Amino acid sequence: MITLTSDFGLKDPYVAEMKGVILNINPNATIIDITHDVEKFDIRMGAFMLTSVAPYFPKDTVHLAVVDPGVGTERRAILVQTKQGFFVGPDNGILMLAAKSQGIEHTYELSNPKFMLPKVSDTFHGRDIFAPAAAYLDIGVKSAEFGPEVAVEVMPEFTRVKREAGSLIGVILHIDGFGNIITNISQKEMNQARAVNIKLHNISLNITLGKTFSQAKPREVIALIGSHGFLEIALNQDSAVDKFHVVVGEKIEVTPN
Amino acid sequence: MITLTSDFGLKDPYVAEMKGVILNINPNATIIDITHDVEKFDIRMGAFMLTSVAPYFPKDTVHLAVVDPGVGTERRAILVQTKQGFFVGPDNGILMLAAKSQGIEHTYELSNPKFMLPKVSDTFHGRDIFAPAAAYLDIGVKSAEFGPEVAVEVMPEFTRVKREAGSLIGVILHIDGFGNIITNISQKEMNQARAVNIKLHNISLNITLGKTFSQAKPREVIALIGSHGFLEIALNQDSAVDKFHVVVGEKIEVTPN
Amino acid sequence: MITLTSDFGLKDPYVAEMKGVILNINPNATIIDITHDVEKFDIRMGAFMLTSVAPYFPKDTVHLAVVDPGVGTERRAILVQTKQGFFVGPDNGILMLAAKSQGIEHTYELSNPKFMLPKVSDTFHGRDIFAPAAAYLDIGVKSAEFGPEVAVEVMPEFTRVKREAGSLIGVILHIDGFGNIITNISQKEMNQARAVNIKLHNISLNITLGKTFSQAKPREVIALIGSHGFLEIALNQDSAVDKFHVVVGEKIEVTPN
Repeated sequence: MITLTSDFGLKDPYVAEMKGVILNINPNATIIDITHDVEKFDIRMGAFMLTSVAPYFPKDTVHLAVVDPGVGTERRAILVQTKQGFFVGPDNGILMLAAKSQGIEHTYELSNPKFMLPKVSDTFHGRDIFAPAAAYLDIGVKSAEFGPEVAVEVMPEFTRVKREAGSLIGVILHIDGFGNIITNISQKEMNQARAVNIKLHNISLNITLGKTFSQAKPREVIALIGSHGFLEIALNQDSAVDKFHVVVGEKIEVTPN
Repeated sequence: MITLTSDFGLKDPYVAEMKGVILNINPNATIIDITHDVEKFDIRMGAFMLTSVAPYFPKDTVHLAVVDPGVGTERRAILVQTKQGFFVGPDNGILMLAAKSQGIEHTYELSNPKFMLPKVSDTFHGRDIFAPAAAYLDIGVKSAEFGPEVAVEVMPEFTRVKREAGSLIGVILHIDGFGNIITNISQKEMNQARAVNIKLHNISLNITLGKTFSQAKPREVIALIGSHGFLEIALNQDSAVDKFHVVVGEKIEVTPN
Repeated sequence: MITLTSDFGLKDPYVAEMKGVILNINPNATIIDITHDVEKFDIRMGAFMLTSVAPYFPKDTVHLAVVDPGVGTERRAILVQTKQGFFVGPDNGILMLAAKSQGIEHTYELSNPKFMLPKVSDTFHGRDIFAPAAAYLDIGVKSAEFGPEVAVEVMPEFTRVKREAGSLIGVILHIDGFGNIITNISQKEMNQARAVNIKLHNISLNITLGKTFSQAKPREVIALIGSHGFLEIALNQDSAVDKFHVVVGEKIEVTPN
């Protein structure tokens, strides 16, 4: 089974080209799209998608992710083997949050031309390198055959939450289609809090920490641990981002109480 | 075979999480997206999608639909068994238009934790309850094992067309991507009419009832029974909604003549 | 294996209806979406998508493409058999660029009602004629059974590049989601050029012909042969279309040097 994550959108031929390459190698492959609507070049958002979704897939799933502003430069193409499966993509951090949470076993550089398209373009490694690698992994080629074992150094910054005098300093990781504001602060860090004081640019809010959107009245604010395990700020049946005007990457200060 | 309908969009991880859950239970499942672009919380639009598409799928298909503003409240999770297949989702009306047209045989509450994820969140029953239910149905678990038989009371209002002195009073059910205005008035109610007088807010139009868009001149209006079996107002090669400025849910009065 | 290309979008039930029809005939069909976000009625863009993607699919793939402003008129429904596979859709040019590049062997009119839905609507041949044809081809029905062999006369204009005194006169074929401007001028026509002089409405640019986006500084312009084999104008990590304000179909004059 192979999943695909990218910033290619579905209006261009790129995603379908990757699928064609995979199916040419393994006509029986099951291919599942995670999303292709990652914001262009937004490695953090790609990593968030992959981290949210990967735990739900069966063992040995191959996750291919391409958000790749450095395509054609010396950034490496890698394959990460974890306790649960495989991750294929550029060595720019997009794979590492999800891979780390599954337990990394080995990392290899994708350098063996035997498992690439015969002609590798300088602009589209998703099709020419990552798609064939995913397909060959899926039919049982061993990780070590793709290239030498390498050390991975690019680890995304945004997983770290700082602590300052009882407060948690995090960032806004993602704003979902409902307008819910998702932070990088996990359930564990919230401990047993019943409410949170939240500081967002000029706004300071004291919000009950609920379990479901509908504990708030329609259009009222609520904080909860979302289905992905992170603290999120939401309005019941309305858009939190339209109310608070925040953007992805913005700092958020949370004081559980 | 399992179909998916939701208002989750494809930019968030939610749809892929549901697919992961299904494939974890049945790696051989065939999963088909109907649409995930239902307007947020628009149960009527979700029901329209399901009703349009379900008749084309094979017998015993499992249709999972989640437009679920009441998630986390006491609204029930249900499974409807029809003469043709199965419908899984919240008991808020989204399933019932399509289910009714297939002939409802039994309705069960989804309450058996054996067929849910081990940990059920309060915000995402699509992943935690409906996706596993669909997957277990797909591998042959009997409907009665999911929970007690229940009576369904939530029936969508918008299927009813009123008659007033030779006129039909309906609503606008959907506006498609071409700008065509689709009503809830079915072919049967139009009888053998050759033309229709249509009243939309301040507009009154007398329109020929044609068979194909191209019977009208480019950018001219035509009324026809669309491929889904409902009366629609269209412009040939142009957008009717841009011309008439109507919205979904708006009243429409139709006099066949 | 069946691919689908259309201008139906994913917000309406049309694509899922086609898939239901296919799966009803062949429950084991592998269906891959190329894109459903072709601009409404833009046959050229549909043809570009199909041409980009078809070469990556396995032999005997059935490509169904519907961008069909003339549905319901006398335009024919056709099946093109090539050296590599099959193309199914309206006889309006959408299939022919891709089919031609694979080597056309036979063209048949889709006229045998045995391989259509029992009731053929006047507005949706994608579902009623093309989807069943693709499914029956996929399970091995011979091309000649679908109808009489016919001559195809509709060939898209936009494949031709004119030469004028050392310059190439082409058109803008597509603008991708990254804002890259893709022309109809192929690698072969560029010969061994190292740079190009480009004229676009009032703009005249002398641009290095590079191999990868990142050879330009961030936000600077570069010309390259894209992964689809055509000359494109791009900005490194930025949008060329936002800078040059061109539209699809616009003339472009290219002088290699």
